Amino acid sequence: MKILEERILKDGAVRPGNVLKVDCFLNHQMDISLFQEMGKEWKRLFEGVNINKILTIEASGIGIASIVSTYFGNVPVVFAKKSESLNVDGEVYRTKVESFTKKRVYDVFVSKKYLSPDDHILIIDDFLANGAALNGLIDLVTSAGATVEGIGIAIEKGFQPGGDLIRSKGVHLESLAIVDKLDAETGEIAFRH
Amino acid sequence: MKILEERILKDGAVRPGNVLKVDCFLNHQMDISLFQEMGKEWKRLFEGVNINKILTIEASGIGIASIVSTYFGNVPVVFAKKSESLNVDGEVYRTKVESFTKKRVYDVFVSKKYLSPDDHILIIDDFLANGAALNGLIDLVTSAGATVEGIGIAIEKGFQPGGDLIRSKGVHLESLAIVDKLDAETGEIAFRH
Repeated sequence: MKILEERILKDGAVRPGNVLKVDCFLNHQMDISLFQEMGKEWKRLFEGVNINKILTIEASGIGIASIVSTYFGNVPVVFAKKSESLNVDGEVYRTKVESFTKKRVYDVFVSKKYLSPDDHILIIDDFLANGAALNGLIDLVTSAGATVEGIGIAIEKGFQPGGDLIRSKGVHLESLAIVDKLDAETGEIAFRH
Repeated sequence: MKILEERILKDGAVRPGNVLKVDCFLNHQMDISLFQEMGKEWKRLFEGVNINKILTIEASGIGIASIVSTYFGNVPVVFAKKSESLNVDGEVYRTKVESFTKKRVYDVFVSKKYLSPDDHILIIDDFLANGAALNGLIDLVTSAGATVEGIGIAIEKGFQPGGDLIRSKGVHLESLAIVDKLDAETGEIAFRH
């Protein structure tokens, strides 16, 4: 998606360890107009797909998923939570996710009330690298007997294995920008086309 | 706000310890159409107020704030983060918040890049009880020399001191539903009008 790539080139910053900082428009400060363009693009890419719910994971996915919902008939958005809270009682679907950026393993869960075999899910998230969070979300959907109809990712790190692993399962994955190279010394960012 | 109160009565559940569970439409599964009505209402309540940025806190505030932004000219939405991440470098404004539901103290921070003395901030959050999170957000805005132009809260627990404390500071606070009584035994929920 051209405007996302241009925005990454303009405002993104490369840090050692293959970190791409885009917190000025994607995952700390959020550009809602950009999210609307992303929503329109995913609507085009998933045109005709039966989607009745969007699933994402806290925290960075929530803003994107909420705006995207407005392009899919305002379907409910469920966000998977990362730690137990006193406000979530009852039964939950639960899985474990290893965080690339935070270097730790955490529990991820969704209340069983909000995923059912009738659900046709579009998963939305900001980043795809090793696929840990995404595989966790797929696991939650599968546990509920629901269907993953598609996955929309803002930025995929194409040099890490997550995207290929997910595509090899036959899942319809649409990453709006795929970064094939990050060079922290020169600041170079190269996209796949 | 009538439709929010009706929704709380229909789908909310009272739990011991003054807990109001609204996770089926507000803070786990999110009703985007309801958030749009809330956005319209806050736009009406803050009509004419100069707002160039929305500030919220992860995770439950993010979806609401993102939709609300679309009624305020798509102003940027910044969400305060609750724990240090490798993806946030550089200088941050930082404060401490005690969580009512999680019974612990955590650090809350915003990158200094995203709050400045030029900012006229609308703070958005899902709940106001003791005001701990909200006071933390106000503290961050004040630290940056920015101005809190208003605060929009979905559900205020009127029997807890947060709302009165904030109003006593002269801040323009608009809670869309104020709950004055929760009875876990009978399930009663009473609103202030």
